[in-house]
Amino acid sequence: MGAALAHALLKAKVSTVVWNRTRQRAEAQAAAGARIAPTAEAAVRDADLVLGVLRDGNVTRAVLEPIPEDAFRTSTIVNFATSTPHAARKEAGWAAERRMSWLSGAIMVPTPLVGQPDSLFLYSGERAPFDIHADVLKVLGGDARHVGTDHGLASLLDTGMLELFFAGMTGFLHATAMVTAQGLKATDFLPFAETMVDILPASLAGLARDVDAGTYPGTEDNLAMELAALGHIVDTSDDIGLDGRFPRVMRDLAAAAVDSGHGGHGWSRIIEQLRKPA
Amino acid sequence: MGAALAHALLKAKVSTVVWNRTRQRAEAQAAAGARIAPTAEAAVRDADLVLGVLRDGNVTRAVLEPIPEDAFRTSTIVNFATSTPHAARKEAGWAAERRMSWLSGAIMVPTPLVGQPDSLFLYSGERAPFDIHADVLKVLGGDARHVGTDHGLASLLDTGMLELFFAGMTGFLHATAMVTAQGLKATDFLPFAETMVDILPASLAGLARDVDAGTYPGTEDNLAMELAALGHIVDTSDDIGLDGRFPRVMRDLAAAAVDSGHGGHGWSRIIEQLRKPA
Repeated sequence: MGAALAHALLKAKVSTVVWNRTRQRAEAQAAAGARIAPTAEAAVRDADLVLGVLRDGNVTRAVLEPIPEDAFRTSTIVNFATSTPHAARKEAGWAAERRMSWLSGAIMVPTPLVGQPDSLFLYSGERAPFDIHADVLKVLGGDARHVGTDHGLASLLDTGMLELFFAGMTGFLHATAMVTAQGLKATDFLPFAETMVDILPASLAGLARDVDAGTYPGTEDNLAMELAALGHIVDTSDDIGLDGRFPRVMRDLAAAAVDSGHGGHGWSRIIEQLRKPA
Repeated sequence: MGAALAHALLKAKVSTVVWNRTRQRAEAQAAAGARIAPTAEAAVRDADLVLGVLRDGNVTRAVLEPIPEDAFRTSTIVNFATSTPHAARKEAGWAAERRMSWLSGAIMVPTPLVGQPDSLFLYSGERAPFDIHADVLKVLGGDARHVGTDHGLASLLDTGMLELFFAGMTGFLHATAMVTAQGLKATDFLPFAETMVDILPASLAGLARDVDAGTYPGTEDNLAMELAALGHIVDTSDDIGLDGRFPRVMRDLAAAAVDSGHGGHGWSRIIEQLRKPA
């Protein structure tokens, strides 16, 4: 990812200094026009913008800790090594103690899409450094969004978006395991799956509306019906002999809501189940 | 659902007879132009097409069992009371013993969309009765598809599609539980979620290609990275005190694949985990 970011900057003729714990990894960027810094301190000193793309917050702090504070006087550091919102806030707190200008970033595209005009990058923390560096940040991903001053927000939205993405991919694979066990190909099932993805945005909008209102009217659906459908999914999975834990969690959430007397509510009611520790 | 189907037929001027175990429920259709049959036998005798919209296969058989076989001589029965592929095949086998012309159907839209030109209805079983009745079936849902002669197929595709749909809705709600716990509204998160839904079709197509090829190259992603991301989702959920079973199942599937030495493979490799009973 660090290489992809450097490449995007160099392509846009932004003067770029690279440093890597393994110097050899920086050589490819040097060939593309970057200057290699001999030490992390040399890389950050007098920089306008420092992009941290280390493995995690601990490694980032270990690299930055030994550098004298005055080396960061001119720079804003963007920490792309965020993990959880909690960790992002902790790292930002550490930076605040050192009076560093710090943004918490989340890269929402895979490496091949870095540098594209519609690639989404999220930033949280103070607004001013984001605005000052917006032009360069947009070189990394044109859809650069400041999502709030709470340093945890970029990571929080990242985490939520990824969960939805993994949920879709896992649901598709479990469904594909069912249909391929009965003679269909995955690519036979794909157009049917796409039909469901097509109707998802309208359904998610309905769920969001209910969650914000705190009411779960179930006008077009209800949990009792949905529990039956989820039971059929679990039964089909079991008939075939698959790992049924994924549909079972959803069935159990619906069953608990129905058992609590919410069988006439809509699927949005499941958020109340999720808000209680299991 | 029965009322919605009758309404669509009446609107298209198709001569319609209705029968309901609770006669009162048939009265609304009578007001719209349907003839009420006094008994199930009277409803099916001399009919061209019988649409069964009872609660499940057991109820359907209990209603049809006492009717003399000759009453079905002229008709094709569409069983919309399918549950699992296994049950759909069992019900079709029962009908075959009675030499009934039988189709297994699955309605892929909620009641307000019955009768629309792009509403998807799936049918499986012999092709000939589907072709003979295609014009009337298209009145129910214009996107009427015969998906194969195996009676389980309509239900199998239905089950797989619903699983993907529930997965998306559950992933969204768990993510929404995380972001709303930290001060955002569900509708604030919605546009970010939609960004993920937008990229889902291309990702599912990649998964389907891998599954059919039986190789999981992981060119743009790998399970080791994805396991770390899922770990952050679980940790974030735990930090907030939510029910984390949904992301935990996905994290555990990824962990098992990585533990088996597949950390460099793509997410598509998860299908091999799902094919093994838990």
